[in-house]
Amino acid sequence: MAKNPKPPREVAPSLSDQLALDPGPQPDTFTTRFLPERMGNMGSFAYGGCALGVGVQAACETVSQGYRPYSITGSFLAPVSIDIKLDCSVRRLRDTRTFATRLVEISQQQVQKDGSRQPRLCMILLADLHKEGERSMLDFSAPPDRTYSGPENSRTPQEIARTLTDSKTIAPETESAYNTLFGLMARHFETRQAPEGIGAQNVTGMAKHQPTTQDHLPLTSKTTADWIRCRTPLRKDKPLEHYAGLAFILDGYLSFLAGMHNHMFLDDAAACASLDFALRVFSSEWDLTQWNLREMKSVAGGEGRTYIDSEAVWQQE
Amino acid sequence: MAKNPKPPREVAPSLSDQLALDPGPQPDTFTTRFLPERMGNMGSFAYGGCALGVGVQAACETVSQGYRPYSITGSFLAPVSIDIKLDCSVRRLRDTRTFATRLVEISQQQVQKDGSRQPRLCMILLADLHKEGERSMLDFSAPPDRTYSGPENSRTPQEIARTLTDSKTIAPETESAYNTLFGLMARHFETRQAPEGIGAQNVTGMAKHQPTTQDHLPLTSKTTADWIRCRTPLRKDKPLEHYAGLAFILDGYLSFLAGMHNHMFLDDAAACASLDFALRVFSSEWDLTQWNLREMKSVAGGEGRTYIDSEAVWQQE
Repeated sequence: MAKNPKPPREVAPSLSDQLALDPGPQPDTFTTRFLPERMGNMGSFAYGGCALGVGVQAACETVSQGYRPYSITGSFLAPVSIDIKLDCSVRRLRDTRTFATRLVEISQQQVQKDGSRQPRLCMILLADLHKEGERSMLDFSAPPDRTYSGPENSRTPQEIARTLTDSKTIAPETESAYNTLFGLMARHFETRQAPEGIGAQNVTGMAKHQPTTQDHLPLTSKTTADWIRCRTPLRKDKPLEHYAGLAFILDGYLSFLAGMHNHMFLDDAAACASLDFALRVFSSEWDLTQWNLREMKSVAGGEGRTYIDSEAVWQQE
Repeated sequence: MAKNPKPPREVAPSLSDQLALDPGPQPDTFTTRFLPERMGNMGSFAYGGCALGVGVQAACETVSQGYRPYSITGSFLAPVSIDIKLDCSVRRLRDTRTFATRLVEISQQQVQKDGSRQPRLCMILLADLHKEGERSMLDFSAPPDRTYSGPENSRTPQEIARTLTDSKTIAPETESAYNTLFGLMARHFETRQAPEGIGAQNVTGMAKHQPTTQDHLPLTSKTTADWIRCRTPLRKDKPLEHYAGLAFILDGYLSFLAGMHNHMFLDDAAACASLDFALRVFSSEWDLTQWNLREMKSVAGGEGRTYIDSEAVWQQE
């Protein structure tokens, strides 16, 4: 007997839709409106940022007005399938006059051999939120490691790949593979890679033998930077969706960044995946639909793991 | 009727004792053998590192041999009383051939008005462990921000305070307050403050008006560094106790570091407390009873919070 053909995949038309949650069967449970999507691989594993973004969204659904996330930490526990919607379950750990803390479990109802479905825990995250408007004793932040050109002088990865194909520096297959692998990012975000960063010089690592202006530096001083902004408006009645969207995009590139800074790409590793994450937000004066600079740097690696700092994001002034 | 006098407080004679756990009533639950202790305040709040250290210890109690922590993240949820032992409850989130992940809840049985006891959740942490011996594709780590003198040319905070008292730079009361406030650290650890760091120059911030060699630098470039080693042997049958001890000590100084680097001390803030933390370990080749260099830096501050990087620890070579 022939298998039923899969129904056509309904694709989230905007970041807001990608992050949208419908109420689940219990209080403080939610299910995503759309399926998660792949990125950076051709298998059926979803991009980690999908789960991360909806996890933050779910936490934000359960807090009172005026609280904003400042610290989100957690772990990826299992691969996320692109064929099953994500379920989120939120536990309210703390609610005080100034703080709210949530534990979010993200799971999928995976199909078992006998056809039944069993939940599988894919990610867990802790979200700390703070009531806005606290008085500051100190107000400061570290600047980026180097000076980068503005978005008007930076090009999209697609433009960069096209130029390198035209000059025969990379094969047309590399350009086309790039556009397929990173299509999800391009669909939801406009990104422009600052020419001073490595990623802009080697097609995000795909032209891995290409020399770069940072080859003389130690690996921990090398950086990649891009300007990012969401292509579509976020929902006015969900002001914290900017945080969920930020969490969505910040998982990008991380698992293979150290390789990308070291003339290696995905094909040099048996497997590359995000393991855990920590996102911290120091300001409430930003907007994901405006240009934000993201800088990425490899801090340490060893024993088969690498540690990447990509939490550095600055709003354009 | 006179209240019963409190029984004398039994003090943990070593770091190992401070971190020791006895099995609790349920599987994967534990209770500390000793009470948590205060540090950096004169109230009845315990040092955050006590809960953090025993939380890591509890996670490590539930994994098979050969797994080592590489990422520990979490949040402080409520003040920890120094008068009640800590209860830990561990949930096994994941066990694979290479990874183990644990969620640890740390609570205290707090006394209610009617005399009954109710558990209060004080801290939650996620611990990711990795099976040792994975093959590395890349092996690298960032060096400290500046060059520091070795432990042989660094002095203990107590020696530094004494010299400044002798030269009448600080009042004898400041010296004695220092020794009281930071007694717990000195009991379990030998620490020597590198003279190049700010902490060594202003008695960990207590001599806050004292000029320092880093006054010309932006706040995010200023550093404090010290050499730390545990005073007492750790248990041979608990090789992961080094990780619990590292978590114990790394919470030190953090809540007021940005102030200490900016000519402020605890008395300038209404309240100072650790909110959340992320500890990452990149190597298995280290020993807490040998000299380790710890470097501390303020990354960002605003809206009443600061973000400190003190995860940078290097074993002496």
